[in-house]
Amino acid sequence: MAQVDYPEPVKALISQLKQLPGIGPKSAERIAVWMMQQGSESSGLFAEVVDRAGKLVVECRICGFFSTEEVGCGICDGQQRDLGSICIVEQPTDILPLERSGAYRGHYHSLRGRISPLDNVGPEDLRIGALVGRLREGDFSEVILALSSDVEGEATSNYLAEILTEFTGLKVSRLAQGLPAGGGLDSADELTLMRALQGRVGV
Amino acid sequence: MAQVDYPEPVKALISQLKQLPGIGPKSAERIAVWMMQQGSESSGLFAEVVDRAGKLVVECRICGFFSTEEVGCGICDGQQRDLGSICIVEQPTDILPLERSGAYRGHYHSLRGRISPLDNVGPEDLRIGALVGRLREGDFSEVILALSSDVEGEATSNYLAEILTEFTGLKVSRLAQGLPAGGGLDSADELTLMRALQGRVGV
Repeated sequence: MAQVDYPEPVKALISQLKQLPGIGPKSAERIAVWMMQQGSESSGLFAEVVDRAGKLVVECRICGFFSTEEVGCGICDGQQRDLGSICIVEQPTDILPLERSGAYRGHYHSLRGRISPLDNVGPEDLRIGALVGRLREGDFSEVILALSSDVEGEATSNYLAEILTEFTGLKVSRLAQGLPAGGGLDSADELTLMRALQGRVGV
Repeated sequence: MAQVDYPEPVKALISQLKQLPGIGPKSAERIAVWMMQQGSESSGLFAEVVDRAGKLVVECRICGFFSTEEVGCGICDGQQRDLGSICIVEQPTDILPLERSGAYRGHYHSLRGRISPLDNVGPEDLRIGALVGRLREGDFSEVILALSSDVEGEATSNYLAEILTEFTGLKVSRLAQGLPAGGGLDSADELTLMRALQGRVGV
C-alpha cells in the first residue's frame, strides 16, 4: 500500500521552507502545517509580501545596503552624516548592528562577501572596485575596517589595507579586539585573551 | 537623526516571518536577508508555492486531513485499508506519525483540536458531530482514541468515551501509556513511571 503523505502542494511548500537558513525538516513541516491551518487568505498575504520584497528591494549601487532605489539608500541619502568617514563591512546585514551601537554616524560600504579561496571568492568578486571609486571621487579622510575577526575576515582586511595605501593621508583603522561586553575571562578563548592583552589600554 | 533601518518591503517581510511558529525576531531577519540575497526569481517562486498551497489545500470533509479535494483525501480514498477501524486524533498532523509507525492501517478522524476550557474550546468546536455521523453511517467495529496524554487530551478522551457508549458493540481503546522507546528510568517523570507500572504486561 502506498505510504500516505501530505498533498503535493504541501510537500512543495515544505521543500521550499527547508531551504531557508536555520529551518530543518521538522520546522519546515510545522510551519507548512501552521500556514495551511491559517487559511488561504493568510498564506496569500504572506506570498504577496515575499514576492513584493523580492521585486522591490535591490542592492544600493553606492554602499551595497538594501534599498528600494538603485542609487541612494536610506544611508547614502542620509542628512547629517559624517561625510568624511566610511566604514567597510562584509555583509549589508553588518550595517544595522553598527548603526544600533550609536557609536558611528558616517557612511558605509558593504563588500558583499570576503576573500575566501576555499569558496572561490577572490577580490574581484567583492565590491572593492566600487569602494576605490568612492574613495577617489569622494572626500573621505577616514576608513574603518569593520570585518570579522576570523581568518578570512583578517585576510580581507589585510588586502584592503594594502590597497588603501594608494590614498595618502587617509586614516585607516580596524575594530578593536578584546573581551566582549559582559564576558568573563572564564568564557573567553585563548586567542581572545591574547588579543585583549595585546590591545590593553591605559587607565 | 532618523535611525537607519531596512527598506519597508523587507520590514514587512520580517514581520510576516516573525509570525511563523518557532521563528523569533533574529531568525526572521536572517531569513528575510537571505531571501533578498537569493534574488527576486527565487523569492517569486517561494511566494508562488506558498500561495498555491494555501489556495489548493483544504480540509478533507470526511477525516479532517489535508487534501486537494473537498471530499476524499489520500487516506479516505485509500484502497486496502481496514474499513472497520477508525483512529481519532487531535490534529491532522498526528496522522502521519501514526502512519509511519506502520502499526495501523485503518481510517482516521482528526478532531482539529481538543476540549480546552482555558482557550474557550468546547466539544461543539471540534469535529465530533462529523465523527458521530461517520460512525452512524459506516460499518466500524473499532475506535482507537489516539489523543495526547496530558490533562486536556485525557479530558477529551473521556468525553468521547462517554459519547461512544451510544454505539453498542463498538470496541473503544486508548493508546498505551508507559516508558518511551529507548527511554531510561532515570529520564522518566513520576507520572510516566506510575502509568508504566499500572499498565505492566505479563512476559
